[in-house]
Amino acid sequence: MENILKIAITQGDGNGVGLELALKTFAQEEMFEFCIPILYANEKLLLFHRKTLGLGNVPYTLVSTPDEAEAGRLNLIAIDVEGVDVSVTFGKPDLASGRLALVAMEMAVKDAAEGKVDAIVACPIHLPAMPRELFPYKGIDDFLAAQLGGEALTLFCNPYMRVALATNHIPLSEVPSTLNAEMLEARVRQALETVKRDFLCSAPRVAVLALNPHAGAAGILGADDEECVMPVVRKFEEEGKAGVFGPYAADAFFGAAMYKHFDCVLALYHDQGATPFKTLSMTEGVQLISGLKVACAAPSHGPAFDKAGKGEVDEASFRHAIYTVIDVTRHRLAYDAARANPLPPYTPQHERMGGERRRFPAEAQ
Amino acid sequence: MENILKIAITQGDGNGVGLELALKTFAQEEMFEFCIPILYANEKLLLFHRKTLGLGNVPYTLVSTPDEAEAGRLNLIAIDVEGVDVSVTFGKPDLASGRLALVAMEMAVKDAAEGKVDAIVACPIHLPAMPRELFPYKGIDDFLAAQLGGEALTLFCNPYMRVALATNHIPLSEVPSTLNAEMLEARVRQALETVKRDFLCSAPRVAVLALNPHAGAAGILGADDEECVMPVVRKFEEEGKAGVFGPYAADAFFGAAMYKHFDCVLALYHDQGATPFKTLSMTEGVQLISGLKVACAAPSHGPAFDKAGKGEVDEASFRHAIYTVIDVTRHRLAYDAARANPLPPYTPQHERMGGERRRFPAEAQ
Repeated sequence: MENILKIAITQGDGNGVGLELALKTFAQEEMFEFCIPILYANEKLLLFHRKTLGLGNVPYTLVSTPDEAEAGRLNLIAIDVEGVDVSVTFGKPDLASGRLALVAMEMAVKDAAEGKVDAIVACPIHLPAMPRELFPYKGIDDFLAAQLGGEALTLFCNPYMRVALATNHIPLSEVPSTLNAEMLEARVRQALETVKRDFLCSAPRVAVLALNPHAGAAGILGADDEECVMPVVRKFEEEGKAGVFGPYAADAFFGAAMYKHFDCVLALYHDQGATPFKTLSMTEGVQLISGLKVACAAPSHGPAFDKAGKGEVDEASFRHAIYTVIDVTRHRLAYDAARANPLPPYTPQHERMGGERRRFPAEAQ
Repeated sequence: MENILKIAITQGDGNGVGLELALKTFAQEEMFEFCIPILYANEKLLLFHRKTLGLGNVPYTLVSTPDEAEAGRLNLIAIDVEGVDVSVTFGKPDLASGRLALVAMEMAVKDAAEGKVDAIVACPIHLPAMPRELFPYKGIDDFLAAQLGGEALTLFCNPYMRVALATNHIPLSEVPSTLNAEMLEARVRQALETVKRDFLCSAPRVAVLALNPHAGAAGILGADDEECVMPVVRKFEEEGKAGVFGPYAADAFFGAAMYKHFDCVLALYHDQGATPFKTLSMTEGVQLISGLKVACAAPSHGPAFDKAGKGEVDEASFRHAIYTVIDVTRHRLAYDAARANPLPPYTPQHERMGGERRRFPAEAQ
């Protein structure tokens, strides 16, 4: 049982579907074969969801730290915020639910930073409900990066494609000025490294999408692709790294299903990557936040307020998020182990034995 | 046979797949039941494509004007450009092929403006191959609007969704500054009008997409959606026109297949609409250019240089473009006819007869 990973699960927005995702998933006992789940949630909230959704048969055990968490059951680290009244108004986000969502994430991240949990799966939050003075971030990726250190790379993935985002939660008007050769090169390197280490692709192929319609049509529809994106792709070619291609016009790329030929697609802005990805796979898709100390993931959908409290939500994306962080964590261990102890340079046996070369009996005589 | 429509087909880039699309489509005789096709193409080019692709069994008849075009056959209006050497280098665009593509479009548009053809289907051109001094446009929509008059609205459509573009062939960096309440309102009105007149939806429902990720998340990810898009949607609501909804975050909208609930989706920029549309339907999809004197359409794909001359291209999108302009033209005729002669106000019969009220025999006595 030592190999089984501890996964921190944060409750997300309590007026959304987060707790429903977790309850439905861990209602199935086989999930405990894969991981030790530790849910960071308010207990009153959890009980209310459990009762409302008719999932009263899902047991849990209160623990005070991840060290107490045991395999074969759902462990709960109960969170509370002084002065915050815990009540549920399904589908109607409020600052109290945002406050609880934040505390759950803060505690999980602290435990991850201290090595007490192996990975994090975050249930969806609602950005406008988060208290801005305590959560001055544009998304959970920014938050996790700030807390865990590292540069977050958001990567949507399903069994047949991965789409990474070069820029994420910024207004569209800031995209062209945020992109430059230096940051794009860093993003491409990060995408290459991520598919190598997180997914064990030994010779990854990365496709870079274009910023402008028809990749700028030789400059007629904008110079960015010729002047910024293409030189970055060329640089990798010149380095002899044959794994970087593009820039590809996004519509033609997804229309021709070209993602099938690549280990990762690097989209230049949020909707460019998220829209075709979700168009193809809303329920199977997972949002992986790579580049941090531990693997973090979230369902590819939001808190789905229109479905909250109705028991209608499909937990598939959440379940895939659990599988994904387990796989990624195992891959990272294997990848790092293979590189941590390279074969030592050859030393003849007698030197290693600290003495003279051993003589064969015939020689000794 | 009087009702059968004359469709002008322009050859597109001769080094691409345009002529292959036309030849494959009109190799099937049943196509002549729907329209009188008039192909505007260079004859030498057509013969070369026909031979190379093994489509020598597709006959055509040379005509000099659309008036000579007859039903039941493929009519060819041969085009030539003095001083331009007609040669084919499949997959390699050059300015000569761009020049011919332009002349074909110019002749077709002239005939359409004079009412000699009923609609236009344009085979794909390659923008960088077009002679810039003669074709200072960003796409065929701009060209057609300039030549035919009117405001072009590009609309991707297939049997189960329509996606219109509020802005089209402009660099991404120009999108936020191009969008404003006035132009967006005009685009929404045009989208409503287009689905009414071109597709006979009597009470259309239009969804407007958001500019920023997560529709700006209450302003945290950009103010455009709250300050520009939402007021436009509200204005339609206040007018009592219940058919305009949004703004919707593009990724969640397509992920949840919400397009099924609308007659038209208005995307704010090219890739936002074209990418999810093509992701879902590359071959069935059609690009309709609405808002002009005649219905114009094109396949939703480009000249597909990688497939040119190989006989591999699927002509489905082109064929659907033909069907689409026929349907749209018929719908417009029906729509306009119904509104051209409204019922006159009621007049008693004796007044209409120009005399006294007719007396019944009993009265006369």
